[in-house]
Amino acid sequence: MTTEHLPEAEPASTRGRPRDTTRDRALMEATLSVLQSHGYSGLTTAAVAKEAGVSTATLYRRWRSKEHLVVGAAQTWAEDLGPDHDTGSLRSDLSTLLHDKARALDGASGRLLRAVLGEAAHNRALADVLFDDFVVPLQQRVSALLERAAERGEIEPVQEPDVVGEMVIGPMVSHTFLIPHTPGQGPGPGHRMADQLLPYLLRSLGAHAGPGPDR
Amino acid sequence: MTTEHLPEAEPASTRGRPRDTTRDRALMEATLSVLQSHGYSGLTTAAVAKEAGVSTATLYRRWRSKEHLVVGAAQTWAEDLGPDHDTGSLRSDLSTLLHDKARALDGASGRLLRAVLGEAAHNRALADVLFDDFVVPLQQRVSALLERAAERGEIEPVQEPDVVGEMVIGPMVSHTFLIPHTPGQGPGPGHRMADQLLPYLLRSLGAHAGPGPDR
Repeated sequence: MTTEHLPEAEPASTRGRPRDTTRDRALMEATLSVLQSHGYSGLTTAAVAKEAGVSTATLYRRWRSKEHLVVGAAQTWAEDLGPDHDTGSLRSDLSTLLHDKARALDGASGRLLRAVLGEAAHNRALADVLFDDFVVPLQQRVSALLERAAERGEIEPVQEPDVVGEMVIGPMVSHTFLIPHTPGQGPGPGHRMADQLLPYLLRSLGAHAGPGPDR
Repeated sequence: MTTEHLPEAEPASTRGRPRDTTRDRALMEATLSVLQSHGYSGLTTAAVAKEAGVSTATLYRRWRSKEHLVVGAAQTWAEDLGPDHDTGSLRSDLSTLLHDKARALDGASGRLLRAVLGEAAHNRALADVLFDDFVVPLQQRVSALLERAAERGEIEPVQEPDVVGEMVIGPMVSHTFLIPHTPGQGPGPGHRMADQLLPYLLRSLGAHAGPGPDR
């Protein structure tokens, strides 16, 4: 609920005994679990501590408030897209990125993102973490692969790489979050979307789209 | 929290006095307001009744549970994209749709969508309403405008109009929900994104993209 800006999201302190990273991990996992079932507003530090099997005092030694705890969880599950390899062509670079994004959305970072997106509407600290740790890494990979493609002469240089970044992020997020899916049917919905999107993205960049599942 | 399927989202009954639509409206507005500040899990029917200035008994005469109330609010603010006019070209049809979507995301339907997206991950009734009332209307407009463009000979017929629909929905949603914006600077961020996306979408469909803010 707070709209105050959070200057930094570090744990409260590291005083006393050395930090127990197993406990930190358990607390972060419990935070995601409670967020998923109760949302940001329904999350209490007591519920997280109970789920993690620690005392609330232990929790507060690490995270000084509920907001720090959730911001910490968002940072813990910052989108892990994996490394940006030069695969040698725009088509395969973009395909790799789309499937990396699908995997991230299917995993803990996607679940965290979904659970806190509503709260980030009026919580600037959380909104900033989502932007820095979920949007920027993808935008950087998009910029890098577009530059390589332009150097190879596959496309003209792109003046607005962030718009292309949103054409990657957006449909993958909307497909995962807004379209009801029946679980357990081969590759996840994000991976199917990745394959369907690819030819449209290539054409939007003025690159040759085929071969592949095209219109 | 419930994953049970909700067969229908009608108000509990219309017994007794004629329905007071002013009160219904106040209850729906209060539901959106409480959802925005407390999320689905933090919403109580008591808080909604208080915000609307009615008794909880009045609320329960109209909506038999918290879930019915929220599903009703989602239906009340079903995305209102406005009518699908044939503006005579793919470019202007698509531009109109993108700006209609920007306006919807800036308004009550966008705020509602954002507030319940997390809950819809494990609430099938809500997920179904979001799909039926927020995704399908846009997909239908995309299908219609693509068909008209193909009939005019502007583009080849599109076999996967829903993928194009997600290329409209996705970046508009991600741009509105994930990119921090400073309010009060001319047209909203969604409208700027609409203009930036347009040439990419046109090219992705094999249509002529210019003129306009292009790369």
